[in-house]
Amino acid sequence: MVKKVLKFGGTSVGSIDRIQHVAGIIKREFEAGNQVIAIVSAMSGKTNDLINLSKNISENFDKRELDVLLSTGEQVSSSLLAGALINSDVKARTWLNWQIPILTEGEHSNSRIINMNINKINNFLKTGVAIIPGFQGISNNGDITTIGRGGSDATAVAVAKLFNADTCEIYTDVDGVYSTDPNKIPVAKKIERISYDEMLELSSLGAKVMQSSAVQTAMMYNIPLEVRSTFTDRKGTKIFDQDNIDYSKSVTGVAYSKDDAKITLIGVEDKPGVAANIFEPMNKAQINVDMVIQNISADQKTTDITFTIKRDDLLKTREILKANKNVVYKNITQNENVAKVSIVGAGMVSTPGITYKMFRGLADEKINILAISTSEIKLSVIIDEKNTLNAVKKLHTIFELD
Amino acid sequence: MVKKVLKFGGTSVGSIDRIQHVAGIIKREFEAGNQVIAIVSAMSGKTNDLINLSKNISENFDKRELDVLLSTGEQVSSSLLAGALINSDVKARTWLNWQIPILTEGEHSNSRIINMNINKINNFLKTGVAIIPGFQGISNNGDITTIGRGGSDATAVAVAKLFNADTCEIYTDVDGVYSTDPNKIPVAKKIERISYDEMLELSSLGAKVMQSSAVQTAMMYNIPLEVRSTFTDRKGTKIFDQDNIDYSKSVTGVAYSKDDAKITLIGVEDKPGVAANIFEPMNKAQINVDMVIQNISADQKTTDITFTIKRDDLLKTREILKANKNVVYKNITQNENVAKVSIVGAGMVSTPGITYKMFRGLADEKINILAISTSEIKLSVIIDEKNTLNAVKKLHTIFELD
Repeated sequence: MVKKVLKFGGTSVGSIDRIQHVAGIIKREFEAGNQVIAIVSAMSGKTNDLINLSKNISENFDKRELDVLLSTGEQVSSSLLAGALINSDVKARTWLNWQIPILTEGEHSNSRIINMNINKINNFLKTGVAIIPGFQGISNNGDITTIGRGGSDATAVAVAKLFNADTCEIYTDVDGVYSTDPNKIPVAKKIERISYDEMLELSSLGAKVMQSSAVQTAMMYNIPLEVRSTFTDRKGTKIFDQDNIDYSKSVTGVAYSKDDAKITLIGVEDKPGVAANIFEPMNKAQINVDMVIQNISADQKTTDITFTIKRDDLLKTREILKANKNVVYKNITQNENVAKVSIVGAGMVSTPGITYKMFRGLADEKINILAISTSEIKLSVIIDEKNTLNAVKKLHTIFELD
Repeated sequence: MVKKVLKFGGTSVGSIDRIQHVAGIIKREFEAGNQVIAIVSAMSGKTNDLINLSKNISENFDKRELDVLLSTGEQVSSSLLAGALINSDVKARTWLNWQIPILTEGEHSNSRIINMNINKINNFLKTGVAIIPGFQGISNNGDITTIGRGGSDATAVAVAKLFNADTCEIYTDVDGVYSTDPNKIPVAKKIERISYDEMLELSSLGAKVMQSSAVQTAMMYNIPLEVRSTFTDRKGTKIFDQDNIDYSKSVTGVAYSKDDAKITLIGVEDKPGVAANIFEPMNKAQINVDMVIQNISADQKTTDITFTIKRDDLLKTREILKANKNVVYKNITQNENVAKVSIVGAGMVSTPGITYKMFRGLADEKINILAISTSEIKLSVIIDEKNTLNAVKKLHTIFELD
């Protein structure tokens, strides 16, 4: 008896036809003898509709009530799916956050699942399919909580962990993780097997197939994932521990993010705590700083610090820097039209010459590198935004991903 | 300290602007020193939207899951209203069916509220406004249940009863109960005070201001109601026990229902149980039989039975009668274009000549009466549909309601 957690994203349940189709997928799995727990997102667009309703009342809509409001989205799609299954002669029922219950901790809109009662559902699974609305739980004092946008992935992984499921399959509108964006780069290839680390680097770099924190949780508890399409029968991408993967290629994928901006502080007085002084007020203002690069400058008393942020945050960041009396620097430059291009691969660390090969490839295309940052499984460069697709194509080719 | 239950119907919370307006009404009541429990319907149209979603999956959508689905409608409007109140600096929170809990019994889609825990909310009322989604509760075994269409009125009355509230105010899109339909008969007058019985007769006769079963419950527990408009500050209609009303007029209102059809079975073999034999299969087919009139016929061995039904049920009713082998009759006639016009008034029973006055008035207008039925506080006639408005106007005038 195989126990499966199947998670269906918003586009997968985005219409009645699609919900009927998803019911068909579940029925097949159930009638093949598997125990099935389905985690369901809100119908696509629904959560945004609800957020807009709340914003029409107030931009600072009460967080507790916002969770009460938003949780209805998954309740609707879950009950429709349960009804569709029952209508196709499969025993099924919804299990709502408070009926299980799914216990969370942390603040509203950003809670974490800490536990759930598995006995009642385990008993039910012997004869029927359990449908659980994703993205939500209840707090210690019985309030509805939500676990952040895209949180249905996190629910799926938490359920897979607590129910000790054999697999956790993430059904979505793409049929797996690609070596780069298949919409822009037609030679992009589906990756059959990928490690958690690589998946994390790829998804945090713009390949938004799965929510990063859910991948992190799966990695922590070694829960095998599979990302696959609701709309085709093709195999998806399996996400494992690195040990289970044979790295025939050093680079697994090429990711990129756009809408970035780069700021460089030139001649920053070099003393302990200076980086903290720069970034603390930005953190407070919830500005997400991505890459940070620090060089020793010529006189060895000052340093240059470059960092990237989302372009929308540029004005606010300049204001914060201007108001910051704890940091002294000679000059500031900015470039508001940059992109980050990264090669990702768990095999990189053991393959010499990757860095050189990347830089050579970009140079051949006459693409200027504005900044570089490296980690064990990732090498990122900042370039002019206009060169993004060229750079991605070139790197995809030279690392034999086409 | 006055404890008030305020119920807001679907049109009252039908848009963000209206929800803000309702928050203003509640804020005023709360800041005047009242304890306020607000019962909220789903935004207008929302419940129908959800029902249509379920019907697109199956006409026989599972009842348990339908209740899970439909209950989201009131959860959305309740959380939006709570957010609007908090945003206007009034402490407020939603109390969901399972958080209170509201216990119900009976089957899905048609449950009855039997109890709720009042302690937590009573404690909360000392400092804030409690918002309760109408129309729903939970069953003994922890499933979500709903209490029938229009059930938010029933929730309001049940809450008023269990919390021992001083008043129960039904905010809606009309400003009270009228002596007849003000949209069709401009001289219609708002009734300031009306008895439960009269209200029941008027509402079951087409004056759809409040759900009948909620009025019945209020009558049973003697809970004073007030029906008033969300959109004006005018006083509404107070609904009391008969003893509290001074009947200066014998007739309180004139009601009418259209879309009726009349069937007469002529020469029915007159023996015990014949009426039961006729109506049992119709009841099974959920055909609502309204008026039933039986006359002894000339030969005293047979009788004529006339009854009215909704016009939409006419074909089905004819088929059922045809298939019914337990009833023998000579002939059947039908009239598919009839209306029922009724005068209602708790003072009628003690005022002589009402019946004559009504028949005389209709005769003056050359309106033929096809059937007559009377009760203690009501006198109904069936007439040709085309005469409906004329009849209502005439009766409204002769009973001095203009």
